Amino acid sequence: MSLLLREVLVGDRRRDILIQGNRIASLDGGEAEEVVHCRGKAALPGLVNTHTHAAMTLLRGYAEDMELKAWLEKRIWPREAKLTPEDIYVGTRLACLEMIRSGTTTFNDMYFHMDRAAAAVKEMGLRAVLSEGFIDIGRPDAGEVLLRRTEEVHRRIASLGCDRIRVAWGPHAPYTVSPESLKAIAERAAAENALVHIHVSESKQEVEDCRKAKGMTPPAYLESLGLLSDRVVAAHGCWLTEEDAVLLARRGVSVSHNPVSNMKLGSGRLDLPMLAYHGVNVCLGTDGAASNNSLSMLESMKVAALLQKHAGGSPTVIDARHALKLATRNGARALHLDAGELAVGKLADLVLLDLKAVGMVPVHDVTANTVYSADPSAVTDVICDGRFLMRDRVVPGETEILERAAAVAADLIARE
Amino acid sequence: MSLLLREVLVGDRRRDILIQGNRIASLDGGEAEEVVHCRGKAALPGLVNTHTHAAMTLLRGYAEDMELKAWLEKRIWPREAKLTPEDIYVGTRLACLEMIRSGTTTFNDMYFHMDRAAAAVKEMGLRAVLSEGFIDIGRPDAGEVLLRRTEEVHRRIASLGCDRIRVAWGPHAPYTVSPESLKAIAERAAAENALVHIHVSESKQEVEDCRKAKGMTPPAYLESLGLLSDRVVAAHGCWLTEEDAVLLARRGVSVSHNPVSNMKLGSGRLDLPMLAYHGVNVCLGTDGAASNNSLSMLESMKVAALLQKHAGGSPTVIDARHALKLATRNGARALHLDAGELAVGKLADLVLLDLKAVGMVPVHDVTANTVYSADPSAVTDVICDGRFLMRDRVVPGETEILERAAAVAADLIARE
Repeated sequence: MSLLLREVLVGDRRRDILIQGNRIASLDGGEAEEVVHCRGKAALPGLVNTHTHAAMTLLRGYAEDMELKAWLEKRIWPREAKLTPEDIYVGTRLACLEMIRSGTTTFNDMYFHMDRAAAAVKEMGLRAVLSEGFIDIGRPDAGEVLLRRTEEVHRRIASLGCDRIRVAWGPHAPYTVSPESLKAIAERAAAENALVHIHVSESKQEVEDCRKAKGMTPPAYLESLGLLSDRVVAAHGCWLTEEDAVLLARRGVSVSHNPVSNMKLGSGRLDLPMLAYHGVNVCLGTDGAASNNSLSMLESMKVAALLQKHAGGSPTVIDARHALKLATRNGARALHLDAGELAVGKLADLVLLDLKAVGMVPVHDVTANTVYSADPSAVTDVICDGRFLMRDRVVPGETEILERAAAVAADLIARE
Repeated sequence: MSLLLREVLVGDRRRDILIQGNRIASLDGGEAEEVVHCRGKAALPGLVNTHTHAAMTLLRGYAEDMELKAWLEKRIWPREAKLTPEDIYVGTRLACLEMIRSGTTTFNDMYFHMDRAAAAVKEMGLRAVLSEGFIDIGRPDAGEVLLRRTEEVHRRIASLGCDRIRVAWGPHAPYTVSPESLKAIAERAAAENALVHIHVSESKQEVEDCRKAKGMTPPAYLESLGLLSDRVVAAHGCWLTEEDAVLLARRGVSVSHNPVSNMKLGSGRLDLPMLAYHGVNVCLGTDGAASNNSLSMLESMKVAALLQKHAGGSPTVIDARHALKLATRNGARALHLDAGELAVGKLADLVLLDLKAVGMVPVHDVTANTVYSADPSAVTDVICDGRFLMRDRVVPGETEILERAAAVAADLIARE
């Protein structure tokens, strides 16, 4: 299968993007089985969401504006305990729909029953790295059982035979996983060359608790267990120190910045200039819909730029190109994905924006418009792995996905 | 003319909203000439944008990520000097289109050639308070000329005979208007019972300069000139002190919070809890598209909540209902408008949201969805003054508005 996107704006030039199979073959045209005229549209690399809990879309708006402890204990955990594998499938489909509509082609997910999330991703056409959330603290002897259960989930996901999906290990956080299990996960992930997805230094309390219990910061603690490597995506990092940054850069760990969730929960702020100065690869995530509540990476790019400019007290701290890079090239690097750029040989994951959408007019600077004024209504087409997931704003099956999710979410809350 | 919106979700109940003329006549149905079935839609009051410079849409994305001084002197001012009255008309129409698409029905605008802005507003159907920007500092004897010129603009706007439009006085800021002119404006506005729209305490530098030059803060300085009253909308207020807050509350001044612009320019942050504690009416604005770059009040509501939660380090600082109130009831109060609520007798300014838009699913809490996950693609209908401005996502004349704006913006940059 080959596809030619004719006269599409890339940066400040019109290009003819040739896609052969699932790769970008040329930016200067060529023969193709299908030709799509794209004058009036701009292309950007598919956005890469490096931290979310997709099926939490079912809990969007269910528990708002509460302190973290009450939010978790009174609202989220009781409902999560009632989530069935089928719910995960339904909630992940809803998340995929929302991500497609806002220009995301890849996401890094951590939740439960991930084989059912994988079924949703396979059907919806995105690319995903899926990790079964792993929590064994306070449950002696649970570790071995969970390790085996996770490997079983990994086998089930592998049996789907979908190239767009990879499994990762998902130790939830340094404070919710026993050191024995963290070590075991580090060994297994290294042996499998698998990614590790973990929450690190999200809240000040977490870091203080870790210092008290272990005498070191969360990254130093993870280093002592042999967990840090360039296969690790550490989410949040609001309270990372300069020493942490040096360590993470040396190990090649990527840090996923989640500005909307961090601001909404009052967790703190990742120090982007400091991490970048020390050479850490910073990428971007939305976090789950229960704590954001949108999965739009367009929004997260803008809020990341706003937050960093605000914190630095200057508009020059980060520019639109840098914000876009967090959401594309850096995300692809974090997930070891040969994507995140519109360049020959890269995976054909890309998004088309309508230059006649009101937030895109006028076009003095298409990147600034993309980061600072585009919203999902500007996204017309999404291509992942060389295939259209959305075409002229139509996602096949949308109505059924929405209706099923609405019904399941209502039922979830009503369950005793 | 009467209109019945049947079975529309208001909060957590389905209501039948009856509109007679330009007012809400009932929430419990009644006879109407036209009946619109609204099952699957939620209604909220039309959003009120209390600070913008509408025609700056023409400069969206033209000058990004620069320090304020360079941004103004090298990019914005040279282009603004070339703006023609016709440009203002074209840019204001583009802004109106964007505001309609994102659920705004009223805006408080300050710019130049405002009679041409008024022509755009009259045509587009929104409600607006329009002020001709007034700057006379460093131009001895300019004050009298400008006062007369402003009065002439006011007469021209009045001659349009449009009830949805009111004029206001627009002294740009305490540091750009002479004390003599500020006094004269205060007197004229009082005599006319007109609103006054002014930038106050936006940047730290401005406050420090004012303290040095006048020995007091900007609000205290304006008080000394007799300018403060409940007809004043003070934009930004990032550096207001507790004493300022007490003064502004006593005088009934409203303060327009512009979180996106303030973050993007690194200006600082309005202290919402402090101002609210002292009884100041805080409302919400987007600022102009050259410094935001979106005019979506949906986005500004969310970012306001994010910023205040972030600053307070807690998710409980402000909730979704409070954020919505900033953008509706408090905005209407600031502009002396009998609107901002879906209640009998209020002006019929309202917005319908698609409950099947992906960010609105599921509906555990429609207000949370509106503030935290809706984007302009969820807005289906906008009614202002009892008339549809957008119906089922169609704004009449949209293509021509966009094409004309794109052409004029390109020409503006090319002008020598």
